[in-house]
Amino acid sequence: MADALKIGIAGLGTVGSSLVRILGERANELARTCGRPITITAVSARDKSRDRGVDLSAIQWFDSAVEMANTADIDVFVELMGGAEGAADQSVRAALSRGLHVVTANKALLARCGVELAVMAEEKGALLNYEAAVAGGIPVIKALRESLTGNTVSRVYGIMNGTCNYILTRMEKEGLSFEACLKEAQHLGYAEADPTFDIEGNDTAHKLAILTTLAFGTQIAADEIYLEGISNISIEDIQAAADLGYRIKLLGVALRTDTGIEQRVHPTMVPHDSVIAQVDGVTNAVAIESDILGELLMVGPGAGGNATASAVLGDIADIAKSRPGAQRVPVLGNPASTLAPYTQAQMQSHEGGYFIRLTVLDRAGVFADVATRMADNGISLESIVQRAKGSETDSKTIILVTHATTEQSVRQAVDAIKSGTYLAGEPQVIRIERPKAF
Amino acid sequence: MADALKIGIAGLGTVGSSLVRILGERANELARTCGRPITITAVSARDKSRDRGVDLSAIQWFDSAVEMANTADIDVFVELMGGAEGAADQSVRAALSRGLHVVTANKALLARCGVELAVMAEEKGALLNYEAAVAGGIPVIKALRESLTGNTVSRVYGIMNGTCNYILTRMEKEGLSFEACLKEAQHLGYAEADPTFDIEGNDTAHKLAILTTLAFGTQIAADEIYLEGISNISIEDIQAAADLGYRIKLLGVALRTDTGIEQRVHPTMVPHDSVIAQVDGVTNAVAIESDILGELLMVGPGAGGNATASAVLGDIADIAKSRPGAQRVPVLGNPASTLAPYTQAQMQSHEGGYFIRLTVLDRAGVFADVATRMADNGISLESIVQRAKGSETDSKTIILVTHATTEQSVRQAVDAIKSGTYLAGEPQVIRIERPKAF
Repeated sequence: MADALKIGIAGLGTVGSSLVRILGERANELARTCGRPITITAVSARDKSRDRGVDLSAIQWFDSAVEMANTADIDVFVELMGGAEGAADQSVRAALSRGLHVVTANKALLARCGVELAVMAEEKGALLNYEAAVAGGIPVIKALRESLTGNTVSRVYGIMNGTCNYILTRMEKEGLSFEACLKEAQHLGYAEADPTFDIEGNDTAHKLAILTTLAFGTQIAADEIYLEGISNISIEDIQAAADLGYRIKLLGVALRTDTGIEQRVHPTMVPHDSVIAQVDGVTNAVAIESDILGELLMVGPGAGGNATASAVLGDIADIAKSRPGAQRVPVLGNPASTLAPYTQAQMQSHEGGYFIRLTVLDRAGVFADVATRMADNGISLESIVQRAKGSETDSKTIILVTHATTEQSVRQAVDAIKSGTYLAGEPQVIRIERPKAF
Repeated sequence: MADALKIGIAGLGTVGSSLVRILGERANELARTCGRPITITAVSARDKSRDRGVDLSAIQWFDSAVEMANTADIDVFVELMGGAEGAADQSVRAALSRGLHVVTANKALLARCGVELAVMAEEKGALLNYEAAVAGGIPVIKALRESLTGNTVSRVYGIMNGTCNYILTRMEKEGLSFEACLKEAQHLGYAEADPTFDIEGNDTAHKLAILTTLAFGTQIAADEIYLEGISNISIEDIQAAADLGYRIKLLGVALRTDTGIEQRVHPTMVPHDSVIAQVDGVTNAVAIESDILGELLMVGPGAGGNATASAVLGDIADIAKSRPGAQRVPVLGNPASTLAPYTQAQMQSHEGGYFIRLTVLDRAGVFADVATRMADNGISLESIVQRAKGSETDSKTIILVTHATTEQSVRQAVDAIKSGTYLAGEPQVIRIERPKAF
């Protein structure tokens, strides 16, 4: 049997502790499958005294991840600290500079400077694996980076934030408000005390930026993602969506258009009978549409210590199975030096169907005016429904679902409607996304 | 750039011709991604004169695949002929004997002698890749063989035959009979003129046998799979399933039990709100339940020239990205010499819920007798419904859904019911399978 693969783990939170435990418990099976033992020779974390439920006494301890990356006797540096800057960034660079392989779960770091890191890794002939960075245990990086080699991807999209999907699912199933479901998610540990990063879509955007570069061979452009969170989705939207045969999900979507790459994160209506519509709770799902394979959808756990540790372990095992320096998998699917500049498609040019919900005063002529504004902007309607809002109010709800049109047309039509005097609330606009095959 | 990877393709049907075309059209992109060109230097097929829509004039032609495997100047032998024996078998063995890497889409060959071939490959340090052999374009082999390394799998199951899923979907959506939908599938090219191999479950069984060995580290045992096809599923079953909140799918299921591995292929009721229940038409889906990752479901095209060619191309690209002899991915997930003997769990011990549909004469006491037979065998019921069959007959339908029980109990109860005098038709028994997480 070949020499052991020596790994150093920086960060011993939930994922890091799970990984240490699993590498200990499964040492024999892993050595058999990989053709050599995998040995933890170094670890690093902030607090040495904390009890993590795993025995670290035989492993060299570093207070500093950077020092570990610079000096430890390791083949692979496993970064599980998180954070786009600081120690995570410095230690990964230090490890790559030494020619060490790197495995990381750090989406923020990759979204910020993944191309730079890829260049470093490829110059040194090192592997940089990051399956856990997007959609937890779902092997979407491997699918895009390896399985789909030779395919031209047209669209990649998915449910990549468990917190948002949990909240939207509970709102639909229990008829509860956004605020009530958020509190519940916080109570269950599915949402942070400050949930902004999840519910406003930033977390999804980091993951989407990584998928975009893998799918389209362009530079990473996390800052050029159109972003809308779920905090203004109401129970009325969810019920109206259900009535019309749709469900609302927070999707990250990237697609190639004639004018550039469209990257967006927003609440999205998906047809009720599509497979992705059925993905509930904290579960994640990612779909990839490509020209040779067709459509591929993967569903699984997007977070959690074990699921994330499983993805990290798969990345480590891939390194263990190859002889040192023998693999040439480009970090971002294509060699980092060949990535094309990112050209952003304008959001105004986005084409698709739209759901529009208007709260209007109960007056003659309103319905006709709304329909006219749509027609004026060349928008044809799949359906238009008017409903009373209940006896105690004199307002009504008008719900429109459009056929494919442009963002610009919809914004102009809505602005025209807002210039009238009959609106009794802010219009709600939700984009519709249709899976191609299922 | 490194030397070209030289491949020989045996078999130029739909998949082979697609592959030749794609390798030509995408040569530059593939060379960039893989770090070296991929060049077809040899091909083999039965009829040299047939027009396949691709230019083969610059490629060495072999009338015999075995001769090509034995003598051509190639690094990778790509077997796309099919068939468990004969030329496919002989040529793959010849290629592996020479230490060539092999890529194949041949499920029948692997189900019959995959372990032997794996031993040969591993002795020579050659790779044997076969992503296309199971569920077409869905990267389930890669997920089990690579991503899930270190996980203990508890169950793997899926919709792996597009013909059956198409027929069952059409029966449900259109209310048509099995025979009518089969004819339609044949007309559309989704079913063979002799559809036996698909509709009786043999095709699914071959795929399941391969997944079982990957999931559980046991020898391949394709002959020890419990098999029931879909030809006796009636529109009544499908409608009753829908009323009770289920859909009927032909599933291949393998799971680890206390007494051995359970492998079975049969029509199965899955809960209507599960994700896999939503997988319609010719689309395939495979679910894997494991202890660290949790549940993973992959959905995509299970057949077709392009989807299959995409999987074959991914396998070739994996070889192109690694230096010769540098990869140690065990062919069947675990080194072939360490695979455990296969121990078959007895079907009688199978545990799960059951759907039972009885056509009975409209007599007093029948309903009570049926309920008593169930109770006598320790079967508790989730629901029991009695329905008139329409005014022109004096028979009724009784539909039972059981809580978890054993195959033996159900067979004994049904035998007891058959020993009565009130049955007006053969009882229908369909097993229920419940996804764990979604």
